Amino acid sequence: MKILDRFDKQDLRRSIDTGTEEQRQAVVDIIQQVREAGDQALFRLTEKFDGARLSQLEVTRQEFEQAYREVDQQVIDSLRAAIENIRRFHEHQQRSSWMITEEDGTVLGQLIRPLDRVGAYVPGGTAAYPSSVLMTVIPAQVAGVEEIVITTPPSAEGKVSAGVLVAAGLLGIDKVYKVGGAQAIAALAYGTETIPAVDKIVGPGNIYVALAKREVFGITGIDMLAGPSDILVLADEEQDPVHVAADLLSQAEHDPLACAVCVTPSRRLAEAVQKEVIRQLDTLPRADIARASVEKQGAIYLTRDLEEAVEVVNTIAPEHLQVMVKEPYALLGKIKHAGAIFLGAYSSEPLGDYFAGPNHVLPTNGTARFSSPLSVDDFIKKSSLIHYSAEGFRRDGQHVIRLAEYEGLAAHVRAIDYRLEREEERDV
Amino acid sequence: MKILDRFDKQDLRRSIDTGTEEQRQAVVDIIQQVREAGDQALFRLTEKFDGARLSQLEVTRQEFEQAYREVDQQVIDSLRAAIENIRRFHEHQQRSSWMITEEDGTVLGQLIRPLDRVGAYVPGGTAAYPSSVLMTVIPAQVAGVEEIVITTPPSAEGKVSAGVLVAAGLLGIDKVYKVGGAQAIAALAYGTETIPAVDKIVGPGNIYVALAKREVFGITGIDMLAGPSDILVLADEEQDPVHVAADLLSQAEHDPLACAVCVTPSRRLAEAVQKEVIRQLDTLPRADIARASVEKQGAIYLTRDLEEAVEVVNTIAPEHLQVMVKEPYALLGKIKHAGAIFLGAYSSEPLGDYFAGPNHVLPTNGTARFSSPLSVDDFIKKSSLIHYSAEGFRRDGQHVIRLAEYEGLAAHVRAIDYRLEREEERDV
Repeated sequence: MKILDRFDKQDLRRSIDTGTEEQRQAVVDIIQQVREAGDQALFRLTEKFDGARLSQLEVTRQEFEQAYREVDQQVIDSLRAAIENIRRFHEHQQRSSWMITEEDGTVLGQLIRPLDRVGAYVPGGTAAYPSSVLMTVIPAQVAGVEEIVITTPPSAEGKVSAGVLVAAGLLGIDKVYKVGGAQAIAALAYGTETIPAVDKIVGPGNIYVALAKREVFGITGIDMLAGPSDILVLADEEQDPVHVAADLLSQAEHDPLACAVCVTPSRRLAEAVQKEVIRQLDTLPRADIARASVEKQGAIYLTRDLEEAVEVVNTIAPEHLQVMVKEPYALLGKIKHAGAIFLGAYSSEPLGDYFAGPNHVLPTNGTARFSSPLSVDDFIKKSSLIHYSAEGFRRDGQHVIRLAEYEGLAAHVRAIDYRLEREEERDV
Repeated sequence: MKILDRFDKQDLRRSIDTGTEEQRQAVVDIIQQVREAGDQALFRLTEKFDGARLSQLEVTRQEFEQAYREVDQQVIDSLRAAIENIRRFHEHQQRSSWMITEEDGTVLGQLIRPLDRVGAYVPGGTAAYPSSVLMTVIPAQVAGVEEIVITTPPSAEGKVSAGVLVAAGLLGIDKVYKVGGAQAIAALAYGTETIPAVDKIVGPGNIYVALAKREVFGITGIDMLAGPSDILVLADEEQDPVHVAADLLSQAEHDPLACAVCVTPSRRLAEAVQKEVIRQLDTLPRADIARASVEKQGAIYLTRDLEEAVEVVNTIAPEHLQVMVKEPYALLGKIKHAGAIFLGAYSSEPLGDYFAGPNHVLPTNGTARFSSPLSVDDFIKKSSLIHYSAEGFRRDGQHVIRLAEYEGLAAHVRAIDYRLEREEERDV
């Protein structure tokens, strides 16, 4: 992991990988197949990409029961505790409809309504990510979404992770479909014989999943385009390099393209972290992935002072930001862009991945400049409410006529005019 | 305008036009040109598509001053009054950061921050839409966005609408660029010598604008993909067919592809509206557009009762919904999907286009199922806040270790483990 004490901050700016034209063509082709052949295309594509020959797409009751037997009771207990924390946090995000009433009888407002039906994409295959189930399903439930389905790719044996099924079961979700990749997104957007079309698709996935989400955007809602994970640890000299290195590696082990960065004004800490990363890599099970990540994507940026360190943070707009300094709250007002901010020496990023309560589906690759953590907001939509009284109408009608006339829209003018005439008749 | 008393509700479901592969290729090509040649590409493309040979992209101070002389003072007064209403309504959408504090010292929260820089696309050319300036800029200002720029296509003479400039001027926006279409979206996403790259692009446009927004989605934020406008007037027998017809035509005159629909359980009203539409079309300046719209896209659906009429509403998920019935509030709880809901006989849709206060940038083509009116929410982003105390860490650490172990992420486990060990040392 290189230490850089001279660097152009503007070079640190990242943005989402939007794939190659070949990848996009592959995705467009998969979507077309699913639209044309429905379930049959899903069976075919699942055999091709996951190596699984399925006889049905939907996970059975027996598979759910088997899953509960496979997962350790302690893990189930921890999932239950996590659910409670995540639910409690997301309940704070609930919003109410509101209205403004005017004396003349006019009413304006904003209605908040849950989406009808949502699809959560849970990555899978060899790995098992029950935490992704919790993070995508709970905010939808808190929002009041009535129908939630999950798609997740099966293993070559046609199985889906027991942990994923247990997490779904604990949340009362019984519609889980064994399909992943772009074909899962296509099925959720357009519907097949088995899988219902949903109003919004959420959850992280690989580049094909991201490209498919972009393709169906507008047909259905999507949460965001997610890329490989990233972390930025902003640390001062007082911090323990063992902890800093461990936190960096916790993101690096996700993906060779994951980006783990340390920013510090302390050369002593920079060098200690550099050594410690090497030491910890030695014994890490996923060392190959983590090493590729820290060597290619990672860096330790040595800044003049904390002020410049914060500038680096705001340029990178990290997905995860750890602020490990003596007075972390003093920096909070300066930090403008970050998906999740972890303050202080104990707030290690994995706490947020699993347990603290806030969502772990976060904007990656600098998109925290304009995107937000997945939240209850993603599962509601708003409607404006406009109710004019006769009196309000008389007061405002003339303004509307003037502006519509200026824009050259005569039918707009008439819609007001005809009503004003009627009002005048009444006045007579 | 046909009256249909038998129809399959599912056939009414619409979705956004995502264009043809040729259109997409044209857009990808334009974006590439702008990325490579910057301003030079913009000059070239503006000459090609708008017929304007520009010497500079940015609107000058002189052009602003000239615009104020061109626009009637009464129109300016109405714009000012509209600004006040729109601002007041959007101020109700402001949200605060919040935090939860626990007794052990742990703090969780959600920070709300404005975006840094936003680009508003304002359609133009022959038409002038100052109202689009108000609707895209005001919510950004209320959110606290510091830098707002506008792009709008010039006429063949190289001019932009005086009304657009006056509206911008009244809002204190002085960066207006003469560029439209996909090239404007490319410039806002990637930046050129003159036009800064922005964090989010908002505002309606034609199919090329929509496709370009989809292409740059992820590089920058976008609000939504907008299609041609639509309106659904739900009316009972008591309503004045003159008003219903006028409201339908007010959307129909926008675009031959605009969709104006009346839904009613009253055959008498249906027939009266049908006649009245023909009568009003006779004398309408934009009759060709409006006639194409009502004949091809429009319809009057005759339903069994109001209940079935509401089902039609929820299937279509209209952009604009007028509820012209005796007791409109009694239906409000049943209406699930609509961009803006206008209640009662006086709430004619054009009031919402210009003046009432709520935004007129609304989800079209059935996307109200999952999308919302443009709002202050579009101009902020959230960051989660996680601050564990030592005590909170000791309580939760073991859960995190179990869940990370289950997911096979050893570096995640270690990040917690190393800190717990340190804690144990201290306890000794």
